[in-house]
Amino acid sequence: MKKFESYRQPKETDSRVLKQEIVAEPFHCDFSTHLTMGVLGNHLLNVAGNHANARNFGIETFKTLSWVLSRLVIEMDEMPVQHDHFSLETWTTSLSRLFTNREFAMYNPEGKAIGFATSIWALIDLETRRPLNPLSVNDGQLKQYMYPEYTVPIQGPGHIRMTAPEEVYRHVVCYSDIDLNGHLNSMRYIEHLLNCFELDYHRTHRLRRLDIAYSAECYAGDEIKILRQEKAPDVWMLEVVKPDGKAAVKSLLEFE
Amino acid sequence: MKKFESYRQPKETDSRVLKQEIVAEPFHCDFSTHLTMGVLGNHLLNVAGNHANARNFGIETFKTLSWVLSRLVIEMDEMPVQHDHFSLETWTTSLSRLFTNREFAMYNPEGKAIGFATSIWALIDLETRRPLNPLSVNDGQLKQYMYPEYTVPIQGPGHIRMTAPEEVYRHVVCYSDIDLNGHLNSMRYIEHLLNCFELDYHRTHRLRRLDIAYSAECYAGDEIKILRQEKAPDVWMLEVVKPDGKAAVKSLLEFE
Repeated sequence: MKKFESYRQPKETDSRVLKQEIVAEPFHCDFSTHLTMGVLGNHLLNVAGNHANARNFGIETFKTLSWVLSRLVIEMDEMPVQHDHFSLETWTTSLSRLFTNREFAMYNPEGKAIGFATSIWALIDLETRRPLNPLSVNDGQLKQYMYPEYTVPIQGPGHIRMTAPEEVYRHVVCYSDIDLNGHLNSMRYIEHLLNCFELDYHRTHRLRRLDIAYSAECYAGDEIKILRQEKAPDVWMLEVVKPDGKAAVKSLLEFE
Repeated sequence: MKKFESYRQPKETDSRVLKQEIVAEPFHCDFSTHLTMGVLGNHLLNVAGNHANARNFGIETFKTLSWVLSRLVIEMDEMPVQHDHFSLETWTTSLSRLFTNREFAMYNPEGKAIGFATSIWALIDLETRRPLNPLSVNDGQLKQYMYPEYTVPIQGPGHIRMTAPEEVYRHVVCYSDIDLNGHLNSMRYIEHLLNCFELDYHRTHRLRRLDIAYSAECYAGDEIKILRQEKAPDVWMLEVVKPDGKAAVKSLLEFE
C-alpha cells in the first residue's frame, strides 16, 4: 500500500534541514534484497548526529552531555533495494523542557517520498544521568533551528500495552550487541525484534511501520527475553525484558 | 605490536588495482570505538565486488556464475577508530583451474599501511553449484588483471585442526543472519566467532589476525554450535558446526 505517493521533496533545502545522499549497500540488505530496518535506523542516527554537530548542538560540541533516543517511529512506503540511491533529510521541529522532536524524510532519486520518521530525544548530563532543559545550554541557541512548519505525514508514537504476552525469544547480550556507550545498541534491538519472526513470515510480509520506545539499558551478559502479542492481524506488540523483569524496550510492528 | 610500519602506499595506483576511501562510521564501531572486524570484512567484499564488476568479471557481468569466498585472512596492525578515514586497495594476483587469489591493503591518510588481507575464491556455476575454470570464461580475459608482483606481507591461510574442542556457543540461525544468497552471511560468522569471547576478554585483548575457512552453508532455522580450543596463549581455533555435524566454518583468531 503506497500512502506517500503524493509527497514530493521540496525543491530548495532550508538551512535548518540537513540532506544526505545514501546508497543501499548489498551487505546492508536482507535475503529479500531490501535494506534492513536496523541499518536504515543507523543511517537516521548518523545523519541526525551530523545535523546536530554542524549546528553546534551535537554530542561533539557538548562533551559532558548526550542526546538519548526515547521514541522512534519509522514508516516506509517502500524500502530501498541493493544499489538504490535515496536521500535522507532531517530537522528538528520543537523542544520543551524535557524533550526535543526530530523528523526525517526519505526520497527516491526522482524526489518522490518513500518514507518518513519521527523521534523524541532527551538531553542528559552524562555524569548525573539526569535530563537537562535544552534551552538552558548554549544560551538557548537550539531554538533558532526549530522548523515546525515542515511536518511528516505519519502518526506519532502510540501506546503499547500487552494483556497476554507470550515469550518468543531469549538471548544473552554479547560483544557484537554492545556499542560505543557500553550498552545494547539501540538499532540492534530492531534486529532482535525482527528475529522473533520466522524467515517464512518475512518472506510473505513486509515491515511497514516500526514504533519503538526505549526505557532502560541492557548490558553484556544480561539474558534478555522478548514477549510478543498480536494486536491485530500482522500488527505485533513486543517487549524486551531485562533480567530484573523491567522493560528495556517496547515496540509495535506493523507488517503488510 | 606494529609489523607494517615500514610499508607505505605506492604513489601511483596501477590500473589493475582499485582504491576506495572509507570512513569508520560510529555505528560500525564496537564498545572500544574500533571498527569491528565483521564490518571491515564487509568493506573488503564490497570493494572486491566493485573491482571485479568494473573489470567485467564481477557477478553483475556473469549473471549465472558467482564468486564464492573460500578462505580469508585479515591482519591489522591497528584498527581504525570512529570517524577515521582510511583507504582500501584490492587486486588479484593469480588464478588456477579452481581458485583465484585476491589481496587487500589498507592505509591510513598518511599512506602508512595499517593492515593487509589475502583471500581465495572459487568461481561457481549457480545452477550446477560446480566450480568453473575462470580462464574458460570471457576468452580468459581475467588473466590481464593479475598483478602477482604486488604482494602482501602476511602469512597465507593456515591449517586448523582441533584435538580437544569445547562447545562454547549455540545459536539458531535467524532472519538477521541471512543475506541476499539465502544463507548465513559470511561476515556474520565473524560476529558469532567474536561473541564466543566475554566482553572482558575483548576489553583486554585486540584481534590482530583472523583466518577463516568456509566449507558449507548454514540456513535459517539451523541450530549451530561453536567449538573452541586454545592453540597457544591468545591464539584460538574455532569451528562452526551444522546440525548434521559437518563444519560450516573453521577459524583461527590471534589476539594480542
